[in-house]
Amino acid sequence: MRGKLITLEGGEGVGKSTNLAYVRNLLEQAGVDLVVTREPGGTEVAEKIRSLLLTPSEEPIAELTELLLVFAARAQHVETLIRPALERGAWVLCDRFIDATYAYQGGGRAMNLGVIAQLEQLVLAEVRPDITLLLDLPVEVGMARARARADLDRFEQEQMSFFESVRSAYLARAKAEPNRVAIIDAQPALEKVQLQIQQALQQLGVAV
Amino acid sequence: MRGKLITLEGGEGVGKSTNLAYVRNLLEQAGVDLVVTREPGGTEVAEKIRSLLLTPSEEPIAELTELLLVFAARAQHVETLIRPALERGAWVLCDRFIDATYAYQGGGRAMNLGVIAQLEQLVLAEVRPDITLLLDLPVEVGMARARARADLDRFEQEQMSFFESVRSAYLARAKAEPNRVAIIDAQPALEKVQLQIQQALQQLGVAV
Repeated sequence: MRGKLITLEGGEGVGKSTNLAYVRNLLEQAGVDLVVTREPGGTEVAEKIRSLLLTPSEEPIAELTELLLVFAARAQHVETLIRPALERGAWVLCDRFIDATYAYQGGGRAMNLGVIAQLEQLVLAEVRPDITLLLDLPVEVGMARARARADLDRFEQEQMSFFESVRSAYLARAKAEPNRVAIIDAQPALEKVQLQIQQALQQLGVAV
Repeated sequence: MRGKLITLEGGEGVGKSTNLAYVRNLLEQAGVDLVVTREPGGTEVAEKIRSLLLTPSEEPIAELTELLLVFAARAQHVETLIRPALERGAWVLCDRFIDATYAYQGGGRAMNLGVIAQLEQLVLAEVRPDITLLLDLPVEVGMARARARADLDRFEQEQMSFFESVRSAYLARAKAEPNRVAIIDAQPALEKVQLQIQQALQQLGVAV
């Protein structure tokens, strides 16, 4: 049987790493054959593209260049890692995926959603997330957490208004596809966040 | 007045470098304000993408990844260098451009031409070559010349059948747009090749 694709989404500082590890543990304890990966990246070539995307450069990267690089990395990731895993029956847990493009490039950069949808169809074909966990947090809270960490990457250097648009676009995706996307309130204490995650996976049909 | 975009195209070993220098000299002697550039590449970011495309890697690059990387580099090149130059009235002489994508990815890789056309429209918008010089040579002649040079890049390592398809696709582009594309027979001695180039530029309305 074809495996399931679970994606974890959210803006800066929402706690994706911690909660990714939690989801991984839940699924592995449930006996799922699991591949954990991330975007942009996930393969040798796609990680090189990630580095182009995230490293601040002297020359500004044009918006359309950024969008095409995101989809180039995704094409490599889907063809080399995600589709083969799903086809052999493994599940894939991915840290950010297609919704991030609608949020960052569609929302944050205000790029044409029709163009994003065209590229989505070209690159993903039949591969779509079965379940998406959207970690949601007010922007100022997430940014305060993110800035307490390390050096900011090219995206993290954006303005607050950029991240407000990212969050709005994420929430719009969730409202448009409530059966696929579960909004997880990432503000309360970690155990309460993780209880929501566990319930969301169960409601979405995952036996954890 | 908006400048003109002149592109030089052709497969491996057809003598692009030598003839690019010749065209450059002709135009500069004619007093043209000229920008000379190349694809993939031409800007800091686009050259990084070029290096991803040309360097042989352990992990094979998926065809769709390659196509999207080519257009990502082109988007950067058009927005950062080519369009601004044309808009200030400079001419641009570019070593390979959109026809190379139809030849290498459309012909060599047999990728869907409709997809290439969609990406062309998205990335180029109004920027199209005014004049294209297609240096043409039988594949075995060109490959013998190319292989006498240095290390082969990721494309130069392809099979003869790949390059036959590249050449056919280039010639098909020329036949479909005879007013834009001049086929230059690159077999005879250099001075005869360059006479053809000079005549092609004149016939296409360039005063050299």
